[in-house]
Parts: sequence; C-alpha cells; structure tokens
Amino acid sequence: MFCERHKYEIMIETDILIIGAGPTGLFAVFEAGLLKMKCHIIDALPQPGGQLAELYPKKPIFDIPGYPEVLAGDLVTNLMEQIKQFQPGFTLGETAKTIDKQEDGTFIVTTNKGTQHHAKAVAIAGGLGTFEPRKPQIPNIDVFEEKGVEYFVKDPEQFRHKDIVIAGGGDSALDWSIFLSDVAKSVTLVHRRNEFRGALDSVEKVRDLKAAGKINLVTPAEITEIHGDETVTAVTIEKEGEAFKLETDYFIPLFGLTPKLGPIANWGLEIEKNAIKVNNALDYQTNIDGIYAIGDVNTYPGKLKLILCGFHEATLMCQSVYNRINPGKRFVLKYTTVSGVDGFDGSRKEAEKAVVKAID
Amino acid sequence: MFCERHKYEIMIETDILIIGAGPTGLFAVFEAGLLKMKCHIIDALPQPGGQLAELYPKKPIFDIPGYPEVLAGDLVTNLMEQIKQFQPGFTLGETAKTIDKQEDGTFIVTTNKGTQHHAKAVAIAGGLGTFEPRKPQIPNIDVFEEKGVEYFVKDPEQFRHKDIVIAGGGDSALDWSIFLSDVAKSVTLVHRRNEFRGALDSVEKVRDLKAAGKINLVTPAEITEIHGDETVTAVTIEKEGEAFKLETDYFIPLFGLTPKLGPIANWGLEIEKNAIKVNNALDYQTNIDGIYAIGDVNTYPGKLKLILCGFHEATLMCQSVYNRINPGKRFVLKYTTVSGVDGFDGSRKEAEKAVVKAID
Ligand SMILES: Cc1cc2nc3c(=O)[nH]c(=O)nc-3n(C[C@H](O)[C@H](O)[C@H](O)COP(=O)(O)OP(=O)(O)OC[C@H]3O[C@@H](n4cnc5c(N)ncnc54)[C@H](O)[C@@H]3O)c2cc1C
Ligand SMILES: Cc1cc2nc3c(=O)[nH]c(=O)nc-3n(C[C@H](O)[C@H](O)[C@H](O)COP(=O)(O)OP(=O)(O)OC[C@H]3O[C@@H](n4cnc5c(N)ncnc54)[C@H](O)[C@@H]3O)c2cc1C
Repeated sequence: MFCERHKYEIMIETDILIIGAGPTGLFAVFEAGLLKMKCHIIDALPQPGGQLAELYPKKPIFDIPGYPEVLAGDLVTNLMEQIKQFQPGFTLGETAKTIDKQEDGTFIVTTNKGTQHHAKAVAIAGGLGTFEPRKPQIPNIDVFEEKGVEYFVKDPEQFRHKDIVIAGGGDSALDWSIFLSDVAKSVTLVHRRNEFRGALDSVEKVRDLKAAGKINLVTPAEITEIHGDETVTAVTIEKEGEAFKLETDYFIPLFGLTPKLGPIANWGLEIEKNAIKVNNALDYQTNIDGIYAIGDVNTYPGKLKLILCGFHEATLMCQSVYNRINPGKRFVLKYTTVSGVDGFDGSRKEAEKAVVKAID
Repeated sequence: MFCERHKYEIMIETDILIIGAGPTGLFAVFEAGLLKMKCHIIDALPQPGGQLAELYPKKPIFDIPGYPEVLAGDLVTNLMEQIKQFQPGFTLGETAKTIDKQEDGTFIVTTNKGTQHHAKAVAIAGGLGTFEPRKPQIPNIDVFEEKGVEYFVKDPEQFRHKDIVIAGGGDSALDWSIFLSDVAKSVTLVHRRNEFRGALDSVEKVRDLKAAGKINLVTPAEITEIHGDETVTAVTIEKEGEAFKLETDYFIPLFGLTPKLGPIANWGLEIEKNAIKVNNALDYQTNIDGIYAIGDVNTYPGKLKLILCGFHEATLMCQSVYNRINPGKRFVLKYTTVSGVDGFDGSRKEAEKAVVKAID
C-alpha cells in the first residue's frame, strides 16, 4: 500500500501474521501475547468472528467447555475482550492474496488491496476460506459489481438517502431491509416466494414496516435485468409473468455465502479435502516451514472441525513459533493463575497474592 | 463391593470409565454424551474438580478461551452444570487401583475400597495423579491414620463436638480452623512459625476467632508425639523448647499435598517423565488398546499441561471410543448449534428455529 501522506510503501510489521479472525485466529492472539509475541490479523470480512459473526451470531453454542450455553456473537465479544490487552492489529475487509518467503525465513503477505504485512511466522486460521456471495443468474451482473451491485452491506451509510433494492428470503435479507428502511430513501425487498425463512421477530418487523409503507415488498418475484451506464440506475423485476422496470441506486442480492479456500490454495501448501495438511503431532505446521494452519482450515488424522479444537491448535502453534523466533531460549510453561498476565497495553491481571502475617 | 442388601457383588456398568474428575474428565462426559455414550467417574478426592477444586478454587484463571477471567471453582461449577444433563455416575473418595482387561476387550477397574466398574473403554484423566498429603515426621503417625489422624477434612460433621488439633500455616490450615471453630468443641491451631501464609481475609478471621476464644493458637510450635491406644487421645506440643501434652480426639496435619501417579503406574502403560505416553496423532490412546490418557496425565511431543488442551484431548478421545464401540457405523460430526443437545435426563437444548412465513 502506498501512503499518500508519507510518500512511501507501508509495511505492517508483526511477529505472527494471522489470516482469519475467526475464534481460532482471535484466541491465537491471546496465547501469543502470553509469550510476548505481537499479532496482526487479516480478514476478508468487515468484522472479526469468522463463521460465528457472519453466519450465526444470535444462535447458541452448547459445546464450548465451561459454557453450558453461549451465543456465538457473545463468544466473539468475550474473545475480543480477552485479547484486547495484547493490542492486535487488524486489516479487515481485505483478502490475503500472495505470500513471499524472504531469504531470512520471514514472510510478506499482500492483500487484494495491496496492503503488505511482514511477519516472522504466518498462521493460517482461514476456516472454510473466504465467504463468496452466491450470485444470482443475471447476465451482466459482474459489470456492475461495486458499481451499485453490493453482495455485502459493509457500511450502511453508503445507502443513506438512496433508493435500494434487496433480493433474498432469509435472515440477511430481512434484517438488512429492516435496518436500511431507516437509512435509505426507499427499500424494495424482492423474493421469489411469498414465504420468508428467518427469525419470527424479523418476519413480523418486516410485516409492520410494509404496513407502515417503509418497505416495498414484491413477491413472488425475481430480478431479471440490471440497467445503467457507469453505475446501476434501474432493475427489471418479473412478477408472476409480468416484467416492470424500477429505478434504483443500488441492488443488493443477499442469497447467502459459500466458503472457498480462495487464494491460499495457490501458496504451495499440501491440500487434502479442501483443507491444509499439517503435522499435528507437533505444532500444526504445514509443509512450508514457518507457515502454520490452525482451526477449521487444517486437516490431520482424527481432525474435528470444532471451535474448542481450534483453541488447542492455536496454543500449540504459538509455542512452536516462540521456539522458532527465540532459538535456544528455554521455554518454561507458566500458569496464568500463578504468573498473571501482562498486557501489551500496560495492564496487569493477577490472582490475589497470599499475605504472610503474624497473628498475635 | 459386596451389597449387604442384595447379597451379591455390585458392578457399576458404563460405556467410558473416566479416572479423575478434574476439568478434563468432567468435559469428557459432555463430549461422550453428545455421542450417546454414558460415563462414570472415579476420583480419590471427595469432590469433583481436580487441581482446580483442591488447590486453587478461589483463584482466577485467565487462559480459558472465551473467559477473560474465571475463578477455578466457578469453572468447575460451570462444567458440572454443562454435564448434568448426561447424568454421569461418580465414585468419589476412592482410588482406582487395579485394571483387568476382559476377553471381550472390556475392562474391570477396582478401587482401593473394592468398588468394581465394568466399561467398554477407560479414559485416564488422572492429572498429576492422586494427591498424597505431606506427612509430618512423627514416629508412630501411620498407626493412627484414620484413627484420629486425618490428612483431609472429608466430612466436617465427623468433628462435631470433638476436640481437634490442626497443624499447618497455609490456607488449608487457616480455612479449616475457621470453619471447624463453629463445629468442633475446641480447635487448637499449631504452626511452627508466628507468621501464616494465606488470604488476608483468612488471617484476619483467625485473629478475630483467637481474640474471641474460639481458636486456641499455639506458635511457634510443633507436634512431636501422638498418644492413644486404639485411637488418638492426646498430642505432645513443643513450643520454644518446652513440651506439653494436650488431650484431643483428632489431629489434622494440613501441610499441603504432593501428587503421585499412584497405582496407575503399575498398569503396564508406557510411562515417560511421570506421565503416560499416548499416540496423539490420532486419539490419545495408550499402548494398551482401549485405554486412553487425556489431560495433564499424558505426554506426547509438544504436550502442554493446560486445561484447554485437556478439553481438546477429551473430545478426540470420545470420537475414538465411539468408533471403537460402534464398529462400522459412520460417524457424522454434528454441530450443537444445528442439532441441539439431547440430555440423558430427558432435557433438550436447541437453537431457536427459523420460521417459514408469508408476509401479506
Ligand atoms: C451454523 C453453524 C453452527 C455451528 N455450530 C458449532 C458448534 O455448536 N460448535 C462448534 O464447535 N462449532 C460449530 N460450528 C463450526 C464453527 O463455527 C467453526 O469450527 C469455527 O468457526 C472455526 O473457526 P476458525 O477460526 O477456524 O474459522 P472461521 O470461523 O471459519 O473463520 C475464518 C476466517 O478466515 C477468513 N479468511 C479465510 N481466508 C482468508 C483470506 N485469504 N484472507 C482473509 N481472510 C480470510 C474468513 O473470512 C473467516 O472470517 C458451526 C458452524 C456453523 C456454520
Ligand atoms: C496453582 C495452579 C494454577 C494453575 N493455573 C492454571 C492456569 O492458569 N491455566 C491452566 O490451563 N492450567 C492451570 N493449572 C493447571 C491445571 O490445573 C491443570 O492443567 C488441570 O487441572 C489438569 O486437569 P486434569 O483434569 O487433566 O487433571 P487434574 O485437575 O489434576 O485432576 C486429576 C484428578 O484425578 C484424580 N486421580 C488421579 N489418579 C487417580 C486414581 N488412581 N484414582 C482416582 N482418582 C485419581 C485426582 O484425585 C484428581 O482429582 C494450574 C495448576 C495449579 C496447581
């Protein structure tokens, strides 16, 4: 990335570069911090939390040890709170695209937007990969991508006082229609069925907003054409055999996401069953020395794609990186209860110490 | 164990017999339950929780994923809550002593008190082993063990309206002196220094109870002799060079605990660095087919003795046992969020389902 103000290329420096801000990548920051290593995280999504934040933030998980029940979104919040003290850096909304191993064994990772990261070790915590939106079958849709066609709502402000058309029948389509009905000039929600599939609460809110004239509902219907020169100006909606044109600034198809391993698949790593093979016996390192794969993205005999397994893998990975970047230094395991936790933000957490006191 | 009422040997039947009720053993019950396998746990201590309950229940842990801070005792409470639905059996206050592999590949494990357990697989989650009390150097002390000399307070009621002498200068000695001052007829606390080492709160309470005449404090002093025929009747206390005899029903030395691998060391398992070697690549199985070792008790390249690692190991172990006792049955991983959790107690936990509803 070229910095306009400083007139030179910016390079983000860190000890461990983590690709993926899911629960595994987040917890790795904590374990690295205990060992005094700094982390920076890249994620293609605009927010941290991986699948938990993107796919099921309001659903309960029952198999996080010590939590009889926890909402996925709350688990992410708690992990963010736990790692805050170690001040990780974030490059969000960008996809890690290329990796270059340097002569000194360090790595440079560059994103699709050109941001460069220089690290002593790389931990791929990419889960099922980057989430690719399911795209509707409209002939010229790719011409208008990011020119009025948006598959994600990254910044709601973008739609203020604009006319928007949302397509889809699930939670995303419902929730964003509700939210944006307060922001946009007009919201039209198009779905190919009369029935929506989502939280009862959301379905009822959309009904109320429709009655109040704040959401324009068109069902059963589909978008069949997109119009415009540089950017979107209108879409064609087909409803029960009849087509009509509706002027709009934005078309937002929300048909769900499918994960794709993405650019990482071309990094020379051994891939098996769409996952990265690791030497689990030791430290979840890949076939390339210094590149680790942890969480859902890796595979080894006995592998289970569970959140709690990612936590363990992240911890062993950090120990291995510690030995890698502190060669010869003897590692002594310390319990957080006994030694406390020194945050990079200057904070210190510790158990109450015993007093030594005479009783007279 | 011989049942007086039924006049035959009782055999406890279970799928997985877990030795050790520390965090690892407890969480194994949950993962087994998800796979519809029943568990029974043996622990030498009178309460579940392992090191957390016995050594540091009131101290915070900072590295449980998703818990920026949790008291060790609360983590145990939460784990007990999480597994309750799977109704594990408990044999507490008994030590697993012998194991016999049956011809059909199942196991019978017998405790020091003769209780027998029959299981399809055995998971040793024995941590650092059984906690052995540090015994004071008094010549005939072993003669009086469980005859007035007690190294643990298992049931406080045992001491109601009795004269007791407690020795020690740490949290256990302070806390039990405080607690039992309300139960026993008299409490004498003997410590070889004037200074105590414990929570400020406890030290202050002992001071107050001393002032109120409810605890008789003798420092700097030591117990040098134990008297009695069948059971303890008195101890000799030496204070600053002078010895005197004090009548008492009980002598409770609380000088801390040291863990010993114990009887398990003789089960024919490969031992390395006082821990059981496992094939971690797959499922944490030991050199004996059907016997697993999880948590602090095992060792493999890269092993870390951390609570979160025990959780992961317990989970992979359960998957392996599932395949062992359901040969040929294809295992499909189910997410708790998606499939819910069916407790053995008839309860069912599940995420709210999406509604499918028309908006008109
Ligand atoms: C509906 C549902 C319910 C579930 N329920 C449970 C449950 O009850 N218990 C349980 O243990 N698990 C459950 N899971 C699985 C759990 O969500 C995953 O195991 C967990 O999210 C894996 O975490 P992770 O950090 O490894 O990866 P992820 O959460 O997948 O995060 C990976 C992140 O990496 C990013 N990324 C990937 N490639 C790149 C790249 N090249 N550049 C930049 N960013 C990239 C992605 O955008 C993503 O944010 C469930 C999953 C789903 C979908
Ligand atoms: C002061 C202190 C602070 C700590 N702080 C942390 C921390 O911050 N983070 C962290 O991750 N870890 C910490 N630990 C370590 C943590 O407590 C252990 O990793 C954890 O307890 C291991 O759990 P476990 O279930 O494997 O074994 P344990 O908790 O040791 O439980 C094993 C149980 O097995 C029983 N047992 C053994 N042999 C037999 C037998 N033959 N028959 C019957 N019962 C038997 C024992 O009685 C015991 O109850 C700390 C430990 C201590 C002492």
